[in-house]
Amino acid sequence: MSVLIRGGTVVNADRAFRADVLCSGDKIVAVGENLEAPAGATIVDAGGQYVMPGGIDTHTHMQLPFMGTVTADDFYTGTAAALAGGTTTIMDFVIPDPKQPLMDAFRTWRGWAEKSAADYTFHVAVTWWDESVHADMGTLVREHGVNSFKHFMAYKNAIMADDETLVKSFKRALELGAIPTVHAENGELVYQLQRELLAKGIRGPEAHPLSRPPAVEAEAANRAIAIAGVLGTPVYIVHVSCAESLEAIARARAHGQRVYGEALAGHLVIDDSVYNNPDPAFARAFVMSPPFRSSHHQTALWQGLQGGNLHTTATDHCTFCAEQKAMGADDFTRIPNGCGGVEERMAVVWDAGVNSGRLTPSEFVRVTSTNAAQIFNIYPRKGVVAAGADADIVVWDPEATRTLSAATQHSKGGFNVFEGRSVRGVPTHTVAAGKLAYANGELRAEQGAGRYVERPAFSATTA
Amino acid sequence: MSVLIRGGTVVNADRAFRADVLCSGDKIVAVGENLEAPAGATIVDAGGQYVMPGGIDTHTHMQLPFMGTVTADDFYTGTAAALAGGTTTIMDFVIPDPKQPLMDAFRTWRGWAEKSAADYTFHVAVTWWDESVHADMGTLVREHGVNSFKHFMAYKNAIMADDETLVKSFKRALELGAIPTVHAENGELVYQLQRELLAKGIRGPEAHPLSRPPAVEAEAANRAIAIAGVLGTPVYIVHVSCAESLEAIARARAHGQRVYGEALAGHLVIDDSVYNNPDPAFARAFVMSPPFRSSHHQTALWQGLQGGNLHTTATDHCTFCAEQKAMGADDFTRIPNGCGGVEERMAVVWDAGVNSGRLTPSEFVRVTSTNAAQIFNIYPRKGVVAAGADADIVVWDPEATRTLSAATQHSKGGFNVFEGRSVRGVPTHTVAAGKLAYANGELRAEQGAGRYVERPAFSATTA
Amino acid sequence: MSVLIRGGTVVNADRAFRADVLCSGDKIVAVGENLEAPAGATIVDAGGQYVMPGGIDTHTHMQLPFMGTVTADDFYTGTAAALAGGTTTIMDFVIPDPKQPLMDAFRTWRGWAEKSAADYTFHVAVTWWDESVHADMGTLVREHGVNSFKHFMAYKNAIMADDETLVKSFKRALELGAIPTVHAENGELVYQLQRELLAKGIRGPEAHPLSRPPAVEAEAANRAIAIAGVLGTPVYIVHVSCAESLEAIARARAHGQRVYGEALAGHLVIDDSVYNNPDPAFARAFVMSPPFRSSHHQTALWQGLQGGNLHTTATDHCTFCAEQKAMGADDFTRIPNGCGGVEERMAVVWDAGVNSGRLTPSEFVRVTSTNAAQIFNIYPRKGVVAAGADADIVVWDPEATRTLSAATQHSKGGFNVFEGRSVRGVPTHTVAAGKLAYANGELRAEQGAGRYVERPAFSATTA
Amino acid sequence: MSVLIRGGTVVNADRAFRADVLCSGDKIVAVGENLEAPAGATIVDAGGQYVMPGGIDTHTHMQLPFMGTVTADDFYTGTAAALAGGTTTIMDFVIPDPKQPLMDAFRTWRGWAEKSAADYTFHVAVTWWDESVHADMGTLVREHGVNSFKHFMAYKNAIMADDETLVKSFKRALELGAIPTVHAENGELVYQLQRELLAKGIRGPEAHPLSRPPAVEAEAANRAIAIAGVLGTPVYIVHVSCAESLEAIARARAHGQRVYGEALAGHLVIDDSVYNNPDPAFARAFVMSPPFRSSHHQTALWQGLQGGNLHTTATDHCTFCAEQKAMGADDFTRIPNGCGGVEERMAVVWDAGVNSGRLTPSEFVRVTSTNAAQIFNIYPRKGVVAAGADADIVVWDPEATRTLSAATQHSKGGFNVFEGRSVRGVPTHTVAAGKLAYANGELRAEQGAGRYVERPAFSATTA
Repeated sequence: MSVLIRGGTVVNADRAFRADVLCSGDKIVAVGENLEAPAGATIVDAGGQYVMPGGIDTHTHMQLPFMGTVTADDFYTGTAAALAGGTTTIMDFVIPDPKQPLMDAFRTWRGWAEKSAADYTFHVAVTWWDESVHADMGTLVREHGVNSFKHFMAYKNAIMADDETLVKSFKRALELGAIPTVHAENGELVYQLQRELLAKGIRGPEAHPLSRPPAVEAEAANRAIAIAGVLGTPVYIVHVSCAESLEAIARARAHGQRVYGEALAGHLVIDDSVYNNPDPAFARAFVMSPPFRSSHHQTALWQGLQGGNLHTTATDHCTFCAEQKAMGADDFTRIPNGCGGVEERMAVVWDAGVNSGRLTPSEFVRVTSTNAAQIFNIYPRKGVVAAGADADIVVWDPEATRTLSAATQHSKGGFNVFEGRSVRGVPTHTVAAGKLAYANGELRAEQGAGRYVERPAFSATTA
Repeated sequence: MSVLIRGGTVVNADRAFRADVLCSGDKIVAVGENLEAPAGATIVDAGGQYVMPGGIDTHTHMQLPFMGTVTADDFYTGTAAALAGGTTTIMDFVIPDPKQPLMDAFRTWRGWAEKSAADYTFHVAVTWWDESVHADMGTLVREHGVNSFKHFMAYKNAIMADDETLVKSFKRALELGAIPTVHAENGELVYQLQRELLAKGIRGPEAHPLSRPPAVEAEAANRAIAIAGVLGTPVYIVHVSCAESLEAIARARAHGQRVYGEALAGHLVIDDSVYNNPDPAFARAFVMSPPFRSSHHQTALWQGLQGGNLHTTATDHCTFCAEQKAMGADDFTRIPNGCGGVEERMAVVWDAGVNSGRLTPSEFVRVTSTNAAQIFNIYPRKGVVAAGADADIVVWDPEATRTLSAATQHSKGGFNVFEGRSVRGVPTHTVAAGKLAYANGELRAEQGAGRYVERPAFSATTA
Repeated sequence: MSVLIRGGTVVNADRAFRADVLCSGDKIVAVGENLEAPAGATIVDAGGQYVMPGGIDTHTHMQLPFMGTVTADDFYTGTAAALAGGTTTIMDFVIPDPKQPLMDAFRTWRGWAEKSAADYTFHVAVTWWDESVHADMGTLVREHGVNSFKHFMAYKNAIMADDETLVKSFKRALELGAIPTVHAENGELVYQLQRELLAKGIRGPEAHPLSRPPAVEAEAANRAIAIAGVLGTPVYIVHVSCAESLEAIARARAHGQRVYGEALAGHLVIDDSVYNNPDPAFARAFVMSPPFRSSHHQTALWQGLQGGNLHTTATDHCTFCAEQKAMGADDFTRIPNGCGGVEERMAVVWDAGVNSGRLTPSEFVRVTSTNAAQIFNIYPRKGVVAAGADADIVVWDPEATRTLSAATQHSKGGFNVFEGRSVRGVPTHTVAAGKLAYANGELRAEQGAGRYVERPAFSATTA
Repeated sequence: MSVLIRGGTVVNADRAFRADVLCSGDKIVAVGENLEAPAGATIVDAGGQYVMPGGIDTHTHMQLPFMGTVTADDFYTGTAAALAGGTTTIMDFVIPDPKQPLMDAFRTWRGWAEKSAADYTFHVAVTWWDESVHADMGTLVREHGVNSFKHFMAYKNAIMADDETLVKSFKRALELGAIPTVHAENGELVYQLQRELLAKGIRGPEAHPLSRPPAVEAEAANRAIAIAGVLGTPVYIVHVSCAESLEAIARARAHGQRVYGEALAGHLVIDDSVYNNPDPAFARAFVMSPPFRSSHHQTALWQGLQGGNLHTTATDHCTFCAEQKAMGADDFTRIPNGCGGVEERMAVVWDAGVNSGRLTPSEFVRVTSTNAAQIFNIYPRKGVVAAGADADIVVWDPEATRTLSAATQHSKGGFNVFEGRSVRGVPTHTVAAGKLAYANGELRAEQGAGRYVERPAFSATTA
């Protein structure tokens, strides 16, 4: 089966140029002018549109059991929503319980993910430490295509990794050619602030951001970077939400350290006024960690993407419905943390980034796809429109507009953090593994069509 | 008994002016021109000299049981050496063993210190946490004149305070009107690096600085500052030794946070080449933590003192003799950490600071005495030459020179880290509590003459 | 004639303490407990109040011919207003026209200032360069008590100093023991932006801040600091209004350079929304340079005062009435630049600084009086409540409140940039040169009572 | 005519992969595995070697009339030397005298350059300003393929551009889609320092670095960046030599500004001890501006390349022989400024960058070729090994070693600043415009074979 995308402007991270793109099987087989359509090929007219590598969302949680419940989106509905938004690969997380063998958790998540409609891969969390964890990290890298390990510096008394675990796991990752990633928040401070707020009777969602101020995030980011620097390993900071945390990254990078940062679409455009909404159910819907910040921080995050101190955009897609969020009605620390976005990320980043002049189209490709593929070592299989690459492509109409809404989204959970936001620039077609998964509003996501993507370890000869 | 210091230039933190100074009992009773000498007064001719507040060394360890041995200087010999160098007050440390009640340790140290020749006071270390520690902190502040608590972020498996202890103790200190202080080094990283170096067979003193690179110190400084910032308490970083750590302080201060930093005389003028001395006994003599650094860092520390990001100078005086240091002959992690300096600090800082043009005489007074008195709330009892203040005075000859040497020092331990260093600017007389304790080379230190100095809690009305 | 201030809390830069203060003639003669009132002494009851050094406003323009008109306040009305607000000394500016001999201008200003009700002194501007300027600088320092020279980096085609003038004048100041000060804005960029805005038809007061963005100020501050650093002279940046400019100061100070910064009371509390007021006359009243900034910058300025990167507070008091401001009704570049504040500064800084917890009372004294006296070398004659100092004192009621308004102000011009602002903490009495110049709302300012204050050159022996 | 490069590893900026490369005419026509050699093709065996885009040296001065003499290398000898070192394109400078029409100068340089053996293109300097300059800039961009204009902020009384010229030229460049570049040194300060040094009798080459300290460079870099930022144009800083200047770039980039920085091979590895060589002729040979710096700055420059704050490497190749340098024997300000390097850059950057682990091979390509091609808008014609690109290729043996020396160099001038430096990693073959210009030590440079490379203006649609 072939798909010929005709008449568009191919946008890669390094440049944009007029070309047709021919996909055959699950690969791109030709990129050039005036390509001929093979017999039976599906033709996509990309006139006036951009043809870009499919989005990679480096941070999702589908079907996640968390805080006593399970997210609304499973791997099928979540990846289907992704495809509708132009994202063709998600990077999800295997999160073992403390004491649970990593391999057990990994197998469980692999099983859950089989229903995915789009390609997927896993960061594996290191939430505790003993010799078996050390051994399982080796097995995962060598035999299962895992090259990144996640560490939560928050969530005390649950999955928080202490300094000893960070040091040992970072060192092990370095040996194996894997990259450590961190959720950077000082869990001890968060815990103390939560206790204080509850003690003062401040129990609603407005307390959530007060328990997680920027300094709490910046401290942890700085600590993870310092540990990585001392050990000589690269490090990747997930969901950088504030100026102070970004500054820690910029400082380290300015000294030549290999530090990477991820921004969430939500953090880029939503501010913390949502927590003061008179409707607590509305406010609860925005409870995630790190929380949304004041507009000053959004400006900083965009500058981070522009100046090369932030590298990827993601969503931390982790949807809960209103009933689930209501579990924390009387105690903000029990509100399941998480918001959606996997479907909206590409359009939100384009609209607020490219239309505003902050990013060129090539820079958009870099921060939505190419950098992720390079950092996590699946480039040029992913992240570029070129012969030989996976046929993961989004055709983008820069002039079409859409209003984002829960009413029209494919994601579950019944809420949209971007509700009412109007964007100019939307996907018209998504090709995933060579198949048209989305076309002009019609979602053709197929349960189980997504493949597990193995990511090789980094080696000394990796350029 | 009276002492009249005649004909000198009084130097205080705010200005210098010609005046005589009359001491009666243990107080200064008059500062003015042409004061008349009471009957029987001792007259000190200060012509051509500076008359300055006696030095305050904010960081000493006399008679410290540490790493299986006890320091060479006890409270008598150590304070006598201080007086010989123009320092009239030391701030030492009560360091409870983990699980030892703070009050027990406090009483022990109070007993040891009774033989002091100069005034002394104690920072009390919080090395563990439970409700009794919380209670004892209150007792110490309210009943025993303690207004500062020390936290070691290094020394894993011994006295290291984890984040939970830091958060709880800082918060408690804030409630009580006490200031937390920290030894900033990430103990987990130090431990890991020590293990790696030993495993590689790098066991000599040259390994010591490799196990404690600047990033290890800067991380901890940044963390302590972040915790203090989030909780709203001031914080004091002891022995800042590197540019990166200083930058963490400068960043916080630039954002208005009340952070104070201390530099050691040794760190200001000695570089890390000492660890590569072919004589391991020589190299071991310089083993202290944080270690000596490259000259780049010394430049930074001076800039910190000049620009107001560092506030005090101290010594971490903690002397061990060659035999004690030799305990770590085969394993650098067993070398007792510590160096001397209480006797030389004033001259070293004057010579390298004032003679070089980095500091004015008033700034010298600020960083050797006044700032310490203000930060630890014993100003204007200490830290200023003014009527009503304690008669703690050093008369300073800016033109006299001396060569520092173990051969001529009063301190015990048989080693001088400044050996052979020639200084211009030395004390000719030290008046402590109104008595001439040192005069033209003659040390008249009297065992037991020193008093325990109570430091009141800070209050909302403290200016 | 004597004044005894009884029962208050004396607040100096280094501490606060209960004491009476006795003034005799124009000096303070005693500070202590339970002072006895001389016969005929005026008694001021300071119970429950603070007794502080009179304010020093380091930046005023009384009776200034500027942009084709003359300010509304002359030296009498302006200094009278100052006294009503607790400020006892102003530092004004002699501004020669290009090619006008400095000595001529100096004599002119000296003549204008004779009617002053409060003490005054002059910074002299270097607006052009030739050998006569070089010579006159020497005369001013050696014979007329001038130790600071001002340089305008803005106002192209008028009084702007180019790099050559800056370099030569800074170097000359260093030789003479005087400190260079700068108005930091890149005049070339301002000029270009003004031309562009006018060309686009943006001619109202809303264009003013657009023609002077923070980067324009930060560039000039950085340049002046670099020149001073290379030449080895201290430098003082007047009216620092934005975070970026402050950062340039903080960077230099962190490297040990002697750089001082001044904040204006207006910049600390007023934001740039005033320029969008629908009433152009209202907006014009706020036109000054640098302009008011967004709230982000106000936060930064306070942090600068707290962290020691800014040192003084001033006003740039330079009042024009509505008719004068209307000269620029059709062209914002013709609006006479300037706002008032000399009367309100102390109360505004206290209310927004001390009541908020940002500054202690001693820090308030430092940034309103003591630092100015030390930087410009009139300490301890000014800037401290101590025997021997000038009897310039403000008695401050921290609980009294007032609403600032043009209706009740003593300053001329008919407008108050703080209109309607309510402050807690106001002067009840002002003693100037030993006389009660303001008491409980009654202003007793006396034309000609103010003295010209000579400021000696700095010398190598200055502490 | 065809060249087939067989069996190597192609290294591009985004990745490295095993592939053969076929060149036909002046283009690369195929990149892939097991390519078949056309009849008559020259076969290059690249087994065990890297196949990389030919180097682009963004900064050379061939045949430059400067300081009363002309450089030793003309466009033929200079470009021949470049080819021997793996550099296939140079970017030289047209430098009009003040008042000389830009078009006149441009034509003069175009004439001189016709003898080039390698491709070349020109930055055109704006050394003065009037309406004709404004017009000629338009002509150059629209009709002659110039998209970058150079500004000297140093060289007072010669080619120095003042702020007015900078502002007007930057603005004009923005209109035209060209990028301004700057030589960042404050010419006024340099001039003043030169005068002072000469006045003190310090006249030898050791005075050169004293007249151009880092602060002088950092000030100008910061100013150029500020002007560019205010006007909204990108800016490129040539020969960044010190940490302080780099920090100005990093600050701006961290705020999202499009600022680019260039490092010279010499500045990366040579320190300022050369100026203290007892042989003044040796010391003079290193006189260039900015001067060589202490090792601290070299570390910083490498970190800049690693962290993405510096983008290109160049040489400022500008050779003078010993007799020419001797013109300044009695006055360092008359030593013709300039050093060589066009032949050694690639090997020096590889050896010190890649062998040390600082840069991956792909990052080496980025900083020696690709970034230059992208910033100056000749990508993907240059800067990548891909079908359709110019056949400009260097075949690199990472294991071969060489000792750099004037005795073996092709460049003229008789001196090599890298004399005696041993490098591992050298070019074995250079293909330029499809022809083997250098092969295994044999230089086949052909006078006149180089082409003038037109660089199109940037446009809104440029990715």
